[in-house]
Amino acid sequence: MSLTIGVDVGGTKVAAGVVDESGQILAHTRLDTPPHNPSAVEDAIVKVVAELRGEHAVEAVGVGVAGFVDRGRAKVYFAPNLRWEGVSLQDVLHGRLELPVVVENDANAAAWGEFRFGAGREETFLVCVTVGTGIGGGVIADGELFRGGYGVAAEIGHIQMVEEGRPCPCGQRGCWEQYGSGNALVRDARERAAQSLEQAETLLKLGDGTPEGITGQHITEAARLGDPVAVAAFETLGGWLGQGLADLAAVLDPETFIVGGGVSEAGDLFLRPTVDAFEQRLTGRGHRPIATVEMARLGNDAGLIGAADLARRR
Amino acid sequence: MSLTIGVDVGGTKVAAGVVDESGQILAHTRLDTPPHNPSAVEDAIVKVVAELRGEHAVEAVGVGVAGFVDRGRAKVYFAPNLRWEGVSLQDVLHGRLELPVVVENDANAAAWGEFRFGAGREETFLVCVTVGTGIGGGVIADGELFRGGYGVAAEIGHIQMVEEGRPCPCGQRGCWEQYGSGNALVRDARERAAQSLEQAETLLKLGDGTPEGITGQHITEAARLGDPVAVAAFETLGGWLGQGLADLAAVLDPETFIVGGGVSEAGDLFLRPTVDAFEQRLTGRGHRPIATVEMARLGNDAGLIGAADLARRR
Repeated sequence: MSLTIGVDVGGTKVAAGVVDESGQILAHTRLDTPPHNPSAVEDAIVKVVAELRGEHAVEAVGVGVAGFVDRGRAKVYFAPNLRWEGVSLQDVLHGRLELPVVVENDANAAAWGEFRFGAGREETFLVCVTVGTGIGGGVIADGELFRGGYGVAAEIGHIQMVEEGRPCPCGQRGCWEQYGSGNALVRDARERAAQSLEQAETLLKLGDGTPEGITGQHITEAARLGDPVAVAAFETLGGWLGQGLADLAAVLDPETFIVGGGVSEAGDLFLRPTVDAFEQRLTGRGHRPIATVEMARLGNDAGLIGAADLARRR
Repeated sequence: MSLTIGVDVGGTKVAAGVVDESGQILAHTRLDTPPHNPSAVEDAIVKVVAELRGEHAVEAVGVGVAGFVDRGRAKVYFAPNLRWEGVSLQDVLHGRLELPVVVENDANAAAWGEFRFGAGREETFLVCVTVGTGIGGGVIADGELFRGGYGVAAEIGHIQMVEEGRPCPCGQRGCWEQYGSGNALVRDARERAAQSLEQAETLLKLGDGTPEGITGQHITEAARLGDPVAVAAFETLGGWLGQGLADLAAVLDPETFIVGGGVSEAGDLFLRPTVDAFEQRLTGRGHRPIATVEMARLGNDAGLIGAADLARRR
C-alpha cells in the first residue's frame, strides 16, 4: 500500500497526516505555526514529518501552503499570512527529508482533496470555495488541477466586488473576501448589532453582551434561534457569495461549486441565500445549464488529504 | 494539403473563408446575417460554404457563433444577438453540407485563432479579450481551449463590475462590458461632450457637431489630436479594462492577455491606460509574475481562422 504524508501549513497550525490511497488518514499530528520565520516553519514541517515517519513507511510528502506557489510546485512566491517571500520550500525540504516533496497552494490542495475523496468525486469540472477568515479557491478542470500560467490561479478571494471598497491585505480594495468571508460576516453582524442592540438581543446574550464580543459561532447559533440581526447578516453574506459564484461561473463554468471552510458549518443558514443569489445573478440564466452548489465533505482535513494525494501523483 | 472552411456568424455578417494548415485564408466571402431566424442563418451558412467549396476541396467546416455553445460543440443554447434558443446547428449543417461540422462560441474560436496563428503562437496559457460592441473572451490553458463544464466558459464580459450598475442584455446589471466595451466608450464620450461642449470641440467637429453624432472612430481620431474629452474617455475605458484583467488574472493567471476587437484599433490610446490599471490593481502585485498584455494580430479574421482550425482538429 502506498502511503504519503500531507502537511497543511496555515497561519496558526501546521497539521500533518499519513494518508493512504483511499484518502484515509492513518495518523495525525500538529504544531503551532512559528510566526513570520520560514526556517522555523521548515523546522516544524521536518518535525511533524519525522514524527509520522517513525510509525509509517511513506514515499513522498505534499505540503499545502497558504500562499502563491510557482508552477513547478517548488517555490513559494509570497505568503502574506506567513510573511514569506520567495522561499524555495521544495529544495529545502527535499534536502532535509530525503523524500520527494511537492508544494501546493493550500486551497488548491483542499480542492484536490474534495475532488478525489470528498464532495467532488463524481465530477470532472469543479470550483472549490473555502470560506473562512478569507476566501480561498481551487479549480479542477477536466479532472486536473487548474494552476494557471505561473501557478497562481484561483486566487478567487481577490476579484474586486466593490470599487474603492474595503482595503484588503493583498494590497487592493474591495476584494470578494472583504464581503463574503467569515470575517466579513462577523464585522457585518457587529455593525448591525451596534446599530440595533434590542433587535440583536439573542445574539448579544450568547457573548459578553457587547457587539465586539460577537463571534462567528454566536451568529450561527443566534440565526438558528431566529435572531433577526444574525439572519440578516447571513442573508447579506449569501448575497455576496452568490454574486461571486455568478462571476466565477461566467469565467469558469464549472459543473459544481463545492463550498467549505468555517462558515460552511452554518449549513443552510448561509447556503440557501448563497444559492438564491447565485441563481439570480448568473449571466444568461434560464438559457444555460446551471452549476450545482454543494457542501464540502472533508472539513479541515481537505488540504492535508489533497496535498498527500498530490505527492503520490507527483 | 488539408483545407477547411471557417464561418463566423455575427450579429451583422456571416463571414466565411477557406483556410489552410498555416492559417492562411485562400478564399473569402460574406453575407448579411438574416435577422432573428435560425433557419435563414442556416441557409446563409450553407450558401457561403457552397460558394467556397466550388473552388476548393475542403474536409470540414467550423462555425463560430456569438452565443452559448454546448460542450459537445453541436448545439447553441442561447444566442441573444441572433435571438436563438436551443438550435442544434451541428446536426442541421452536417445533414445539409455532408461534411463534418464543429460549432464553437465565436470568441473561443477567435482566441484559438490568435493562439495558433496570431499573437499567442509562443504561449501556452492565454486569455483573449475582444473589445467591441461588448466584451468577448476565450481562454487557452496548457495549449487547449478551456470550455468549462458545460461549454459556456469565458463569458468574461459578464462578470459584475458595479453592484446595481448599468443593465445588460444578458439579464444582469453592472456587467464588465457595460463599462469596458466600445459601446461604453462611445456612451462615456457622448456624456462628457454633452457636459462640456467647449472642451470637446475637436471631437464634436469630427461628427455632426452633436454629442449623439460621436462615434468610436471620432473618439480615436480626436484623442490622437489631443482632445481632452476623448483622451479622458480612453483613460476611463482603460481603467475598467485593467480592473477586469486584474480580476481575470486572479482567477485564471494567464501568461498573456491578448486584446483585440474594434477598440484595439486605437492602439496605445487604450492599451497604455489598460496596462497601467491592470498592473495597479493586480492582487499580490510585486510578489508574483505578471501577465503581459499584447495586441491581437488577426483582426476580424481571428474567429473565422480559429473555427476553421478547430474543424481540422475535430
